Amino acid sequence: MTSGAKTGGGRFFEDYRVGETIRHAVPRTLTVGERALYHALYPARHALHSSDSFARACGLAAAPLDDLIVFHTVFGKSVPDISLNAVANLGYAEGRWLSPVWPGETITAESEVIGLRQLSSGKAGIVWVRTRGFADGRPCLSYVRWVMVRRRAPGEAPEAVVPELAEAVAASDLVVPEGLDFGGYDFALAGEPHRLSDYAVGEIIDHVDGVTVEEAEHMMATRLWQNTARVHFDATAREDGRRLIYGGHVISLARALSFNGLANAQTIVALNGGAHANPCFAGDTVRAWSEVLDRANLGNDIGALRLRLVATRGAAGQLRDDAGAYRPDVLLDLDCWALIPA
Amino acid sequence: MTSGAKTGGGRFFEDYRVGETIRHAVPRTLTVGERALYHALYPARHALHSSDSFARACGLAAAPLDDLIVFHTVFGKSVPDISLNAVANLGYAEGRWLSPVWPGETITAESEVIGLRQLSSGKAGIVWVRTRGFADGRPCLSYVRWVMVRRRAPGEAPEAVVPELAEAVAASDLVVPEGLDFGGYDFALAGEPHRLSDYAVGEIIDHVDGVTVEEAEHMMATRLWQNTARVHFDATAREDGRRLIYGGHVISLARALSFNGLANAQTIVALNGGAHANPCFAGDTVRAWSEVLDRANLGNDIGALRLRLVATRGAAGQLRDDAGAYRPDVLLDLDCWALIPA
Amino acid sequence: MTSGAKTGGGRFFEDYRVGETIRHAVPRTLTVGERALYHALYPARHALHSSDSFARACGLAAAPLDDLIVFHTVFGKSVPDISLNAVANLGYAEGRWLSPVWPGETITAESEVIGLRQLSSGKAGIVWVRTRGFADGRPCLSYVRWVMVRRRAPGEAPEAVVPELAEAVAASDLVVPEGLDFGGYDFALAGEPHRLSDYAVGEIIDHVDGVTVEEAEHMMATRLWQNTARVHFDATAREDGRRLIYGGHVISLARALSFNGLANAQTIVALNGGAHANPCFAGDTVRAWSEVLDRANLGNDIGALRLRLVATRGAAGQLRDDAGAYRPDVLLDLDCWALIPA
Repeated sequence: MTSGAKTGGGRFFEDYRVGETIRHAVPRTLTVGERALYHALYPARHALHSSDSFARACGLAAAPLDDLIVFHTVFGKSVPDISLNAVANLGYAEGRWLSPVWPGETITAESEVIGLRQLSSGKAGIVWVRTRGFADGRPCLSYVRWVMVRRRAPGEAPEAVVPELAEAVAASDLVVPEGLDFGGYDFALAGEPHRLSDYAVGEIIDHVDGVTVEEAEHMMATRLWQNTARVHFDATAREDGRRLIYGGHVISLARALSFNGLANAQTIVALNGGAHANPCFAGDTVRAWSEVLDRANLGNDIGALRLRLVATRGAAGQLRDDAGAYRPDVLLDLDCWALIPA
Repeated sequence: MTSGAKTGGGRFFEDYRVGETIRHAVPRTLTVGERALYHALYPARHALHSSDSFARACGLAAAPLDDLIVFHTVFGKSVPDISLNAVANLGYAEGRWLSPVWPGETITAESEVIGLRQLSSGKAGIVWVRTRGFADGRPCLSYVRWVMVRRRAPGEAPEAVVPELAEAVAASDLVVPEGLDFGGYDFALAGEPHRLSDYAVGEIIDHVDGVTVEEAEHMMATRLWQNTARVHFDATAREDGRRLIYGGHVISLARALSFNGLANAQTIVALNGGAHANPCFAGDTVRAWSEVLDRANLGNDIGALRLRLVATRGAAGQLRDDAGAYRPDVLLDLDCWALIPA
Repeated sequence: MTSGAKTGGGRFFEDYRVGETIRHAVPRTLTVGERALYHALYPARHALHSSDSFARACGLAAAPLDDLIVFHTVFGKSVPDISLNAVANLGYAEGRWLSPVWPGETITAESEVIGLRQLSSGKAGIVWVRTRGFADGRPCLSYVRWVMVRRRAPGEAPEAVVPELAEAVAASDLVVPEGLDFGGYDFALAGEPHRLSDYAVGEIIDHVDGVTVEEAEHMMATRLWQNTARVHFDATAREDGRRLIYGGHVISLARALSFNGLANAQTIVALNGGAHANPCFAGDTVRAWSEVLDRANLGNDIGALRLRLVATRGAAGQLRDDAGAYRPDVLLDLDCWALIPA
């Protein structure tokens, strides 16, 4: 029996060239159906994404799709071309949400290779890509990520190109959705009274609740983004018989949990960085805490909070051990900007 | 590390005042997405909520959202303000659906405190609220529930106010959706031939089927209503490591199962009372049976059946033991009115 | 306590008459909500059903609902009348998709009894039905299936009528959706470069990925089609305490997995035959492979591939043992036509 002639095995390190742009396959129309699933899979409660009437009172035409729905969809599109043979997802930088996405719009995505560096072992290399998402052709998201990708076969290293990446998106580069205005913001309807000035840099917020994760949930979520990386679905893919939970599932869990204490941080507009510190598996009870890293006032009564959003397997607590490594119960260390009434 | 300064712990008994009205947070736009999930999570088949064409033939503009979608959404909104520190959900009364809710409408909710009585122990008290739901501002649901809520600290009891509640909603107070007419009702399409006059008071109907419940299902359902009570999601919340299933999940399971024998009891219009007799956990196989308690003719070929809807963990059978207590396999004892062709 | 008076037990073999047409209950409006769930429950990625913009570029008004959403909905409607007392689902034939179905349309279904043959044991018989589905009244699907149904009581055999069924739908009988044109087909967006002429009769395609199935997933899927056959939901229904997974769940899993290698086989238009070779249970890891059985050119740059789509519990491999029986790890052997750019 023949096999594999029609199915590509994904790209390997030696298949990437700095400067090339890869158009990702399978455009995806997102609707209120995907939103309903998002709200069933995560305890998402931020009012701007939950309610058309609340969004209208904030100057928008309707509730835009949750920021992370857009992220996961664009990310999922990139998986077959970028990370099918990845050993590790190493980091994110310079992520910006450029436009709200409305139900009924179709997402397409592409990635530009902006860096390559082969490991000294010669068995793998690091690939940096700037991935761009479009909604009905309009830019809606852009971010850099870098992954370690295996070589198909040993070979000469390409010239190393390591991009210079901003440590964080500057507040002045944050894109506020057109029309957004927090002048008439209803804090009671939003769920908490805290505005920008109520948060202090260095403040830590425990998001209190925990969610024990089930296999069916993370697989449904990951499929919804048409992310088909085998390790998330096939219990025979790993020697230990466990399915590795898509790192983005943990991001969405942590973000949704952050409603407790950050209910007014309505929408994520930038991803400054992030590390999936340890793998997450079904049965884990995920909790989250945040640290306020920075604040900015953007006008129209809109402020921005730069947040470190941490997901843990246990209680909220320390991030790193004495040696500076992530503690074993830390799952995620994300650095992002979110908009909040000023 | 600081903690909890931004996250409220919910109200305690001493925080309620008779006469105050609490606006609940996070308005929620309900769509065909939430309906699809409802039909994936429960074996819901009543034709009026399943088919636009069937609903049109009954005089409505389209299929309204399932009555219990509206109930769960309104209930979920009330949880952070009413039952976050509740020890027990004690009862329901005077529940009435006041208007159909259509896909695309936004639900808001508020609760008026109508009764308070501190327990003699001084550690907790009973809070009665009348919760009202609105769809795009239009009243769509109203019901009374009472819960036992812990005190934060011991203290003097407030003056006891215990509301007088109707034993059941009078048939003359039932609200028939505007335009509804069962004159041209198609019993074959609805699935069963039985009309109002085919049901006798005292008759018992075994709904036959059973559903074994999974953790992922009840958590997705409960999240969908933005009900974030910790015991439903966090396996570490209880000493026995089990997640308590939201009582409303059992209501919806039983109502959906009741299609077998009550396929023409198309829509619930009143909740006269209800008790969550025993807790339900994943792995339980839920069955249901109903008893006809009363009948009424409302005109336009529309009748109403008052039903006791019982969910059990085992076979359909007796409700109470010789001492009058609910038998251990009884999960739910609900008293409601539903509309049926006369 | 009375029981069962209001709930039918379904039809038995002696209740069918050749020539009668049974209208199935509960019309169902399908929306983008059902589509989102389909894409969460299966790794479905065929671009025509995923993206309005891709579908428009192929001459359609928008992305039609996935072909198997329509199949499962029509099939589910027929279960209470045809297979509630079935011992086995024996086969399919002459299945044709007659029109795309668009979000918002309402599905109704009916079945005509076209054959009956009592077994020599006198305890059961085979019932052949031609089931027809309609979308807002327009024919959208037609197929024959035959099932073995128990007799309620022993009795005289009806005259045996065994329909003559086509071994496969002729290519000239395939219905191409009105307006479909693959002239400007974008292979990069679709995900693979292979067109009709790239596939050879006899070629075998391993679809590579595997999915480990969870109870919550197959139950949600099966409920979504309002298919309430007890064995799929009630862990107490079988002596071994296992829930039998709806055969259609395996069909959808295999079809979605077939994206790897058949990404351009955009939509199924005929079901020539099929066997659920062995039962599937939660915990099984489902894989799939296809064999090209035939090819045809239909005009407008549209071709058709006749495919044997096989789902297995283990690795892709042989279909039958030396004695000609399905090997124990084979779950599904489906014979269908799908449209692909010529």
